[in-house]
Amino acid sequence: MGRVTQRRKVHKIVLDGSPQALEFPVRHREDVLAVEEPLEIRIGSMSFSVTMRTPGNDFDLVAGFLVSEGVIWTPEQLVSLRFCAGENADGVQTFNVVEAQLRPDVVRPETGRNVFTSSSCGICGTDSIDAVRKSSHYSPAEDPLTIPVETLAALPQALRSAQDVFDVTGGVHAAGLFRISDDGSADLLCLREDVGRHNAVDKVVGWALREGLLPLRGTVLQVSGRASFELVQKASLAGIPVLAAVSAPSSLAVELAEASGMTLAGFSRQTSLNIYAGQHRVAVPAPAAG
Amino acid sequence: MGRVTQRRKVHKIVLDGSPQALEFPVRHREDVLAVEEPLEIRIGSMSFSVTMRTPGNDFDLVAGFLVSEGVIWTPEQLVSLRFCAGENADGVQTFNVVEAQLRPDVVRPETGRNVFTSSSCGICGTDSIDAVRKSSHYSPAEDPLTIPVETLAALPQALRSAQDVFDVTGGVHAAGLFRISDDGSADLLCLREDVGRHNAVDKVVGWALREGLLPLRGTVLQVSGRASFELVQKASLAGIPVLAAVSAPSSLAVELAEASGMTLAGFSRQTSLNIYAGQHRVAVPAPAAG
Repeated sequence: MGRVTQRRKVHKIVLDGSPQALEFPVRHREDVLAVEEPLEIRIGSMSFSVTMRTPGNDFDLVAGFLVSEGVIWTPEQLVSLRFCAGENADGVQTFNVVEAQLRPDVVRPETGRNVFTSSSCGICGTDSIDAVRKSSHYSPAEDPLTIPVETLAALPQALRSAQDVFDVTGGVHAAGLFRISDDGSADLLCLREDVGRHNAVDKVVGWALREGLLPLRGTVLQVSGRASFELVQKASLAGIPVLAAVSAPSSLAVELAEASGMTLAGFSRQTSLNIYAGQHRVAVPAPAAG
Repeated sequence: MGRVTQRRKVHKIVLDGSPQALEFPVRHREDVLAVEEPLEIRIGSMSFSVTMRTPGNDFDLVAGFLVSEGVIWTPEQLVSLRFCAGENADGVQTFNVVEAQLRPDVVRPETGRNVFTSSSCGICGTDSIDAVRKSSHYSPAEDPLTIPVETLAALPQALRSAQDVFDVTGGVHAAGLFRISDDGSADLLCLREDVGRHNAVDKVVGWALREGLLPLRGTVLQVSGRASFELVQKASLAGIPVLAAVSAPSSLAVELAEASGMTLAGFSRQTSLNIYAGQHRVAVPAPAAG
């Protein structure tokens, strides 16, 4: 875990007007930063992508990225993962390149292909959602999950309580996967933090793939920030029926959630939340008798 | 501006326990969402990248993206920008593809190249910052700018006051470019909002390129969220000497700011801020006589 955070000298300047601040406006202290480093993802020896990420759970990140890109959807399609053994000028292993070996029958993505562009004519003249949407091998639309609204509204706090890195850096996003029991309670299955919110989700999805848990029926993915199109897409490709975000969704996130039959919650707080799609999965107590 | 926000029906559920909430826990109302759509960027007829963005200022976005990728750095290198004339199935122009024509002597990036990978052997065995850093044609290190700490600390509020879309959606990032005058005051030159914070910065940089303002000496770029490596890189390539973020920087953001001779401020609030690199540019009042 040493590479997840880094201590740095920082000049803290306080302008609060207090006598102490006026006399000592600059305090030299150490601050704890979230580490950000590049990770190159290779399929065999072919470079597929480079992402800026917080080191840690890198095999999960690569596995989840391959799921999110629609390359694989079962653990058997992923034969092995290993770090490339390169060293920097100081002879230190960088652990910044992961090679994935795929089963021979898995269709390789084009080398250096643009992650979004789906056809040779690009997205000119197509509706935007069709241009960028990847088809999922799982169908979150058919998931019969029902979740009590109180349970859903409590997830951001549950996520926050379980976060390690945020507490010390204030600089990472989190994604938490919760299994909803028959009694309506939620159990945290997996929490991942990263400077990139897409990475945090990929790490959760990759963990689930490697644990043999895909499709993730009966689960909720709670994320710390906003809900973008890409996050909805990642959840859909993993078969997750409910995505909840602490902040606002974008227009295309809502459109994709509707098109995929997913439930999308936003501005999810302890005392209120908004349902943008798939409200049939959210159980609301019946109105009190007048 | 019609495509920047979108109205959507939303089910708002309130759990505050008030009698009204118990009787009417679900309110059906309209919510205003930030629009997110894909934009394909072409160089000539070649597809270069697809980014998810909030429509608007798309020519600035493309110009800034080309600067951030190190492809161009003067307005003369960019001959023209135009929307591709494709229509969707309903015969509506999508305005989601922009073609950039570059001057013949501009070195074209490889087709479909990975935005980060800088050499054929990838980033295995190199220090991470060398692997992903792009060289800038401008040198923010030599910028003699000095900014009073009170001015720097006031920029987040100035940015927030000038934001249009955030007020109604709560779902966009902002980037504001401020010119620092000789008297130490700050003037807002350009503000851009987008669902993606990288896009907001690219829109600001592209605006400046097209206005003939690069390199952006004597300016501060204030961003609404965190400071990542990529944001520092974008500022460096535009010759901006100071980047200030409302939230935390990552480790690699600090490393790149130091290596580029830039000033990096984080947790920038009205009453305090942290300086992570280049503190010589921030003027702090002398301690009051005891």
